[in-house]
Amino acid sequence: MKTLIKNAAILPMVGTPTADSINAEYFTGCVAWEDDRIVFVEPGQGTQAGMGAEDEFLAQNPDCKVIDGRGKLVMPGLINTHTHVAMTLMRNAMDDVPLMTWLEDNVWPFEAKLGADQIAQGARVGITEMLAGGTTTMVDMYWHEAAIGRVACEMGIRAVLCPSFVDGPRMEEFEHDLTETLAVAASKEAGGRLSVRIAPHSAYSCSAENLRRAVELAKQHGIGIHTHVSETIDEQRIIRERHGCTPTEYLCDLGLFDIPTIAAHCIHVTDRDIEILREHGVTAVHNPQSNMKLASGAAPVAKMLQRGVNVALGTDGAASNNDLDMFDEMRTASLLAKFTGSGLIDGGDSTVLPAYEVLKMATVHGARAIGMEGQLGVLAPGALADIVMLDITGPHYFPGNNLVSALVYSAKSSDVCGVWVAGTERRRRL
Amino acid sequence: MKTLIKNAAILPMVGTPTADSINAEYFTGCVAWEDDRIVFVEPGQGTQAGMGAEDEFLAQNPDCKVIDGRGKLVMPGLINTHTHVAMTLMRNAMDDVPLMTWLEDNVWPFEAKLGADQIAQGARVGITEMLAGGTTTMVDMYWHEAAIGRVACEMGIRAVLCPSFVDGPRMEEFEHDLTETLAVAASKEAGGRLSVRIAPHSAYSCSAENLRRAVELAKQHGIGIHTHVSETIDEQRIIRERHGCTPTEYLCDLGLFDIPTIAAHCIHVTDRDIEILREHGVTAVHNPQSNMKLASGAAPVAKMLQRGVNVALGTDGAASNNDLDMFDEMRTASLLAKFTGSGLIDGGDSTVLPAYEVLKMATVHGARAIGMEGQLGVLAPGALADIVMLDITGPHYFPGNNLVSALVYSAKSSDVCGVWVAGTERRRRL
Repeated sequence: MKTLIKNAAILPMVGTPTADSINAEYFTGCVAWEDDRIVFVEPGQGTQAGMGAEDEFLAQNPDCKVIDGRGKLVMPGLINTHTHVAMTLMRNAMDDVPLMTWLEDNVWPFEAKLGADQIAQGARVGITEMLAGGTTTMVDMYWHEAAIGRVACEMGIRAVLCPSFVDGPRMEEFEHDLTETLAVAASKEAGGRLSVRIAPHSAYSCSAENLRRAVELAKQHGIGIHTHVSETIDEQRIIRERHGCTPTEYLCDLGLFDIPTIAAHCIHVTDRDIEILREHGVTAVHNPQSNMKLASGAAPVAKMLQRGVNVALGTDGAASNNDLDMFDEMRTASLLAKFTGSGLIDGGDSTVLPAYEVLKMATVHGARAIGMEGQLGVLAPGALADIVMLDITGPHYFPGNNLVSALVYSAKSSDVCGVWVAGTERRRRL
Repeated sequence: MKTLIKNAAILPMVGTPTADSINAEYFTGCVAWEDDRIVFVEPGQGTQAGMGAEDEFLAQNPDCKVIDGRGKLVMPGLINTHTHVAMTLMRNAMDDVPLMTWLEDNVWPFEAKLGADQIAQGARVGITEMLAGGTTTMVDMYWHEAAIGRVACEMGIRAVLCPSFVDGPRMEEFEHDLTETLAVAASKEAGGRLSVRIAPHSAYSCSAENLRRAVELAKQHGIGIHTHVSETIDEQRIIRERHGCTPTEYLCDLGLFDIPTIAAHCIHVTDRDIEILREHGVTAVHNPQSNMKLASGAAPVAKMLQRGVNVALGTDGAASNNDLDMFDEMRTASLLAKFTGSGLIDGGDSTVLPAYEVLKMATVHGARAIGMEGQLGVLAPGALADIVMLDITGPHYFPGNNLVSALVYSAKSSDVCGVWVAGTERRRRL
């Protein structure tokens, strides 16, 4: 089964824009896919008089389904590289309070009561929200990930399921969850859209022994790791007191970074930490809205990118964000970087983290984070057909000066009018 | 003509929430208006068995039009207290560049070519965007404000039109624009929805003579002033070099603050400046997205509020934002305040600028800024019927824990499904 979108603005996320190639990142043209793979991405537009790029394709594929993309932009599906999708259950439950009040009076007591069924319900809401807003892949860290995986199967989102543990009884549940999650990911229903990583919660909440066990299990199953790193100043202090080093140094010493690792937050990283992340190919995930709302700080995103670290983008959970909106998150990432200077320039700089870089964080870098560079986060022949279409006719796109800027600074997730994961339509509103 | 919305979540913005009154700011009930005034706001909900708050009203007003507000939230229309609506024309034209490049290569040459017709076109787009997103009043600063006023008449938004000037030839055009704008505001078509203020651009771009002329004209016409204050560090330095004081002190000395004044930005204000603003009842307008994007800094919003300054909220123009979305702006205001500590606490504080305070900035404080406290920004009998209705059934509202939090941290302007200005429907999507 083939589908073609024609006459749309196509943003393939495959180029490297330069100062004199403004607007060269996108073109009017078409994209086509067969089953779960993209087969054709070309500029050009049919006219009444002549042949467009799509005409030859359609001549060879007369049964192809055709969607007219006039007034639409087509781009790769967004990758939410750090979330806790089931935390939609705690959305707007307790805001504007100190971090420890929020954790002790809200999150922890609530989570203590959660079973697999509730977690599945929270995941269903969060996945609905993400698909509606153009997110086609989520990297999710929680427990009962097998239950979340079953919901992901049913709803068709692509997911990296990361069963999580902290010291204590949850460590035992974790090994059971891991086995079950691996089975869900390998199932026929998952259709290859699910994969698994191991998620020790953090350097401060897991013992060295349990962190080493995570490394061992990751090696045994040939899978990656996903953890929180340097989210708060308190975490820095605790690890410094316990181990005389930074969380990054500590986790590196334990061998975590010998495994492909996704490190969420990376706010209080030192220059040496940044070098370690780069050397070991660790992905840092920036979660600006959660970090601002909890007053955790701002990750030095531009500095990490400049030094060669792969930095992706995430929403974190809806209890601290309070939504799972990657367009909103892209805008905040760019604004926060400009306001702070993002590790490069004290006092801020309006040139830091340009729009296209932010789009890369939400697509190409997310794909790299999960070992799917070139397969996801781009529109290119051979890549997976995870595709998002936006209606760009709203007043907030006027006068259509630069669609890359528009996507970061004025687009809304509610502009998303079409979403395909692995070539299958998961949302449509035309 | 009377209209009643029943069975909705009503957020009247008239209470003062306390720590133990969580969720007491809103209730399920109804709101009714006759012509341009609200006549009835009551909690209660009709059931099949019994009478709701609305039943008595409907018994007395059998011809009243009724809207079922189930799944909806009804609140006062938002007040965008600082914008340049016609700058939609420059949206996404040049982002991620240094401030002076943006001004010299983009804004100024473009603006030099703008006539009244283009400005009206830009205003038409911006007003469409604002009404769609729940903004019912704009405080607009530009030139050709008479042209903008005619568009506002036609489209039905409430507006404070502020003809602006800088030194040079535009000063002469300004006096002509002022006369014409006053005529438009007084016209029958405006229906009392338009008023006028005088807008000297800033302390650094207007001579003392011209600033005094602004004061004189404001007194002569009995109208207020709207200007930019302390937007950048450069402005602080220039005024310090020229006059040996801060922009706030300088403008105060010239007598501007003897007139009701709206001061946009107020980023680099000193404690003494804050005291001056409070003493003179000057409204400071916070524009967090524009300030972050241009790396101008962060206004000490929480500190100003604590010291008794009226702080309202604005989007600034779409050339530096890049949209006119007050929901987005509310979220950013709260996140930025938490991240910075907002003048109160260095290093940030997750308790600063709670959601209800931000909602007040966008409603009650905006009304106070334009001398319409109690008339706008609240749902109360006798107030003007500037009303916004949101669909709160989307996944990003789940599980409906606290609608005040939801409006600031997870609502989207695209949830707005009904907008009335002075009782007349300006947008509806049910």
